[in-house]
Amino acid sequence: MNKEIDLSKYQIRTDLAIDYVEEKKVLKGVKHKTNIIDNITITNVELEEKNALNKKKGKYITLEFEDVTDIDNREKVINVLTKELRKILKLNKDSFGLIVGLGNDKSTPDSLGPLVVNDIIVTNHLYLLNELSNNYKRLAAINPGVMGETGIETSDIIESIVKKIKPSFLIVIDSLASKSIERLNKTIQITDTGIHPGSGIGNKRKEISFETLGIPVIAIGVPTVVDATVIVSDTINFIYKNYAFNKEYMNNPKSKLTFNNINYLKKETKENKRDKQELLGLIGTLEDEELQLLLYEVLDPIGYNLMVTPKEIDFVIQKLSDVISNSINNSIHDIDKK
Amino acid sequence: MNKEIDLSKYQIRTDLAIDYVEEKKVLKGVKHKTNIIDNITITNVELEEKNALNKKKGKYITLEFEDVTDIDNREKVINVLTKELRKILKLNKDSFGLIVGLGNDKSTPDSLGPLVVNDIIVTNHLYLLNELSNNYKRLAAINPGVMGETGIETSDIIESIVKKIKPSFLIVIDSLASKSIERLNKTIQITDTGIHPGSGIGNKRKEISFETLGIPVIAIGVPTVVDATVIVSDTINFIYKNYAFNKEYMNNPKSKLTFNNINYLKKETKENKRDKQELLGLIGTLEDEELQLLLYEVLDPIGYNLMVTPKEIDFVIQKLSDVISNSINNSIHDIDKK
Amino acid sequence: MNKEIDLSKYQIRTDLAIDYVEEKKVLKGVKHKTNIIDNITITNVELEEKNALNKKKGKYITLEFEDVTDIDNREKVINVLTKELRKILKLNKDSFGLIVGLGNDKSTPDSLGPLVVNDIIVTNHLYLLNELSNNYKRLAAINPGVMGETGIETSDIIESIVKKIKPSFLIVIDSLASKSIERLNKTIQITDTGIHPGSGIGNKRKEISFETLGIPVIAIGVPTVVDATVIVSDTINFIYKNYAFNKEYMNNPKSKLTFNNINYLKKETKENKRDKQELLGLIGTLEDEELQLLLYEVLDPIGYNLMVTPKEIDFVIQKLSDVISNSINNSIHDIDKK
Amino acid sequence: MNKEIDLSKYQIRTDLAIDYVEEKKVLKGVKHKTNIIDNITITNVELEEKNALNKKKGKYITLEFEDVTDIDNREKVINVLTKELRKILKLNKDSFGLIVGLGNDKSTPDSLGPLVVNDIIVTNHLYLLNELSNNYKRLAAINPGVMGETGIETSDIIESIVKKIKPSFLIVIDSLASKSIERLNKTIQITDTGIHPGSGIGNKRKEISFETLGIPVIAIGVPTVVDATVIVSDTINFIYKNYAFNKEYMNNPKSKLTFNNINYLKKETKENKRDKQELLGLIGTLEDEELQLLLYEVLDPIGYNLMVTPKEIDFVIQKLSDVISNSINNSIHDIDKK
Repeated sequence: MNKEIDLSKYQIRTDLAIDYVEEKKVLKGVKHKTNIIDNITITNVELEEKNALNKKKGKYITLEFEDVTDIDNREKVINVLTKELRKILKLNKDSFGLIVGLGNDKSTPDSLGPLVVNDIIVTNHLYLLNELSNNYKRLAAINPGVMGETGIETSDIIESIVKKIKPSFLIVIDSLASKSIERLNKTIQITDTGIHPGSGIGNKRKEISFETLGIPVIAIGVPTVVDATVIVSDTINFIYKNYAFNKEYMNNPKSKLTFNNINYLKKETKENKRDKQELLGLIGTLEDEELQLLLYEVLDPIGYNLMVTPKEIDFVIQKLSDVISNSINNSIHDIDKK
Repeated sequence: MNKEIDLSKYQIRTDLAIDYVEEKKVLKGVKHKTNIIDNITITNVELEEKNALNKKKGKYITLEFEDVTDIDNREKVINVLTKELRKILKLNKDSFGLIVGLGNDKSTPDSLGPLVVNDIIVTNHLYLLNELSNNYKRLAAINPGVMGETGIETSDIIESIVKKIKPSFLIVIDSLASKSIERLNKTIQITDTGIHPGSGIGNKRKEISFETLGIPVIAIGVPTVVDATVIVSDTINFIYKNYAFNKEYMNNPKSKLTFNNINYLKKETKENKRDKQELLGLIGTLEDEELQLLLYEVLDPIGYNLMVTPKEIDFVIQKLSDVISNSINNSIHDIDKK
Repeated sequence: MNKEIDLSKYQIRTDLAIDYVEEKKVLKGVKHKTNIIDNITITNVELEEKNALNKKKGKYITLEFEDVTDIDNREKVINVLTKELRKILKLNKDSFGLIVGLGNDKSTPDSLGPLVVNDIIVTNHLYLLNELSNNYKRLAAINPGVMGETGIETSDIIESIVKKIKPSFLIVIDSLASKSIERLNKTIQITDTGIHPGSGIGNKRKEISFETLGIPVIAIGVPTVVDATVIVSDTINFIYKNYAFNKEYMNNPKSKLTFNNINYLKKETKENKRDKQELLGLIGTLEDEELQLLLYEVLDPIGYNLMVTPKEIDFVIQKLSDVISNSINNSIHDIDKK
Repeated sequence: MNKEIDLSKYQIRTDLAIDYVEEKKVLKGVKHKTNIIDNITITNVELEEKNALNKKKGKYITLEFEDVTDIDNREKVINVLTKELRKILKLNKDSFGLIVGLGNDKSTPDSLGPLVVNDIIVTNHLYLLNELSNNYKRLAAINPGVMGETGIETSDIIESIVKKIKPSFLIVIDSLASKSIERLNKTIQITDTGIHPGSGIGNKRKEISFETLGIPVIAIGVPTVVDATVIVSDTINFIYKNYAFNKEYMNNPKSKLTFNNINYLKKETKENKRDKQELLGLIGTLEDEELQLLLYEVLDPIGYNLMVTPKEIDFVIQKLSDVISNSINNSIHDIDKK
């Protein structure tokens, strides 16, 4: 097999810090702690200057939760997200925020940012008229569109508006691509490191961060698609897990009683290299990263510009937008009822 | 009747120069000529520095046409509009345009600008990569949103992007309010004077023009709503016309043969002041402008924020958007087939 | 003035029983009582067989409320509407409902019915699979479209589906035309008399009622547009009221202290026939109905197919849809939290 | 590996007859012929009573074409589809059609049917008023919705409306799932066999056909999604093809000159069983069908309800809808200009 792949050609498409965190390992320059509130797992990852993940120094907070199409669960996520946003924003009475929705409102999985911005309670125009009541802060919001539709670098639009209206902080909302099917629409990442080249679904290529804009930039992202290569590599791994599970439990008389198809992924199965090669051949000998790169090599030249989303994406994206817009409104203005 | 109305409170909401042009009068500083091509009436009004209409110096070209929901008629309007745009734009090979869609994409009659921008063929990002083929010009496009949704003056957004990307000309598309029901969705105005305070439907309050931006600003506008006051004053005038028509023709034996309800507005009827007062009382003695102001006084305090649109507005606005986006694409890029 | 108008040509476009109820009069066959809860006025009108309003025998319940774009107010209206629906529906455990959204989802003010249906919790398919939990009732829902888009009488579609799936009751949601600007989007009418020819905005021409379908038909309607003729006749009346108000109060020294433009409509002013004719001429001598008919005669032949709506209709209609869909879900299924 | 999979559990999700046709084989009861017009491949498959494909007797016409986002290509496809529809419809002057859009207008890849129906020129209501001009035929159209939103079997809605309005033929438009990534949005299938259980994307479970309705039922389908299992099995096959291609051509000095990544799928490579097993292990020994079933077994219990679509699906589906609605309008009414 040709292993001399040019790695730089293939961008591994994830921006979730949590995808890189191994729960039991201690990594250089990486601190993390996990908390569970109302069934929502909150992971704080703090990356120091030179860290083993090779990602930018800063805070990454990840909320993992179940289905936000359930209204009770949705309210719980809003509460937790509101609190986390307050902590990372540290606003004072003169804070002036600009909320930016990245993405394409005409492509459902990429429309999260524009949808959130539509529901932000903007007040900057009232502030300028001295008509702003005390429990609201100064807030503006824009949907800059995507480069394919504007012909302009999105970061240029943001930068020029920031220069003009001079907000004291920025919140950027974006749909992300995930490396993991399980996290699709069930994870929100907040980071104070902004948005970086190659992140997200579309063409948002220049960095949007404190370094480029001179004000704090909080990025809120939700993985709404996985790349086609991810589902293939995940499934190849699942094939082996399913095989190992069946081999271990199906021949065990006790398993007859407890067997449940759904659980094969939850059981720990020890990886047996020989078994894996027997089942999957040379493919079975590849490391995860190698497999992914091979898949890019195979699929890329065919020009498949495919994305994988849940069938109910149109509905879910609306609910995620509700969660994020409410949390931003609550955390910035004093309108949270709790 | 209280006639001491504070005129400055009431903005007469029209931006159609043609509304002010009396066909047979010669007005100081106003030149106009009319042309008919394919059933489309093209009126060129040229206003000199100090003109009788008290409007800004510049060119105002008005196309009046029938129903653009008919595909054949639509293509005729596209042809005429393409030619008029070419004449007023006078592009050369280095021209770089920015197309701006004013208005609110969530309010149907105000969504014309955003709809047009969605169909513009943008190329600026390709130009920057040296990937632009010869028959396309450099073009970018944005939808800045409305102040009620962004919290930012629309003109500030435009100004800051113009400063950043430095286009050589701007085209601004906007839904207008009309003084005349008959012009609704059947008129396109092109002007090189840009956009002015108080024009249009929404809150687009600062001037967007050569004077403020330093580059030519062509504004394309279509009247898509009339103010509630307009329909009332028009109807009051129609009541009299209908009355005068009936009085003159219904008692004429010959009219029995030719009578057609639809035509009462097309017949010239001489205005008889006594008749009018008998029919309409003091109201009948008011000049048009006075009547309109009275109606503002009556309706304004009640807080009626009403607009009048044709029932089929959702469909018509799509077709008008097609007409304008195609004409802009054709006139700027070399893709017109004719 | 030609007063020989063929009355049958002009359909007075309102279906709100409350428009016909004079608060202080006792009308034959008309009982009504009014109740106020949480600032919501609930008027119960009960029409007997032969009634002075010449409308169909049955119950008409009208809720009048302030702005439902306010979330607190919205929840109050949901509570009241839920209770009223429960009273009129009188469900038992075997009840099986079909919810029908009348109107055109592509025309904003006519899209209320389709929007409501989109948020109904349907369960009939689960019932048929024996998978329905106890606190839900059997429910189905359809959007039959409008005749201009289907080519089929809407009532024929409904009738044929009723025959097939045999529900025990029907709820029909429709956008109504109102005779009164003040009621626009601030009134919900519930009636057990169904839908009748000429009601509503679009072409829904055949009756949909117990008489035609053999099951109870509850109609829920909200006035979302007024006809152009209504705004003209209302304004003509307002002109007089404003004139009378100014005449009475402006010359009264005490009024200088209390004068407030907004209130001229709330003050009782005695109608003075001479004054009215002086101000409005012959027009001022017409009864309301006569004026409306005259306006139809004047506007109809011109082919103005105009509607009058508030500028924020796109937003308001979403909130009204929330109110009605939540109230239907709550009143039928056992999911109301109160 | 557990090979005792219950095959009936897994529905192989394709309804494209062409997926089953082997170009060079002669199959029992299967006739097919291929034609190319304007770069569009037209394959006519005729299945006799007992055929080797085990599909229903009837005609299956498949158009394969390139990108319909190109306007010139789109017009070519409209021409070919119009002609094919005319041939299969065989209309006479009394023909009365009902067009049915299957699918969910709120899920982009499933919205093709509803989008097409929105652009059908319906005339049945004019016919009933004797207002239909000669070059139009009698036509009605409905969007029955999906069972998850109506609670009613879609086929029950269609059946009851057919009984009521008695059309002489039915055209049903549906989004299909494809077994092949290459056919996504680039294939239209027309068949006179109607719609069958398990076809399509959503829950449209009962047959809609001549047998159930008593009138000819033409189904028009476009594959707009592939199941996640398909992309995995395709990719596993591509991995081997890529491997075989590289092995054969990369070591061939001449290939250095002509090598082009894109072509590996177009080159014929002989399958070498030993190579395949070395590369892919036991997985490499499975037949296509076996692999697919294994993938269902692996992915199904995890509950991944995933679909794979091109990133530009929102745009492409609009253009496909244009193609089909125009072709239906042209083929039924006499409005085709060619």
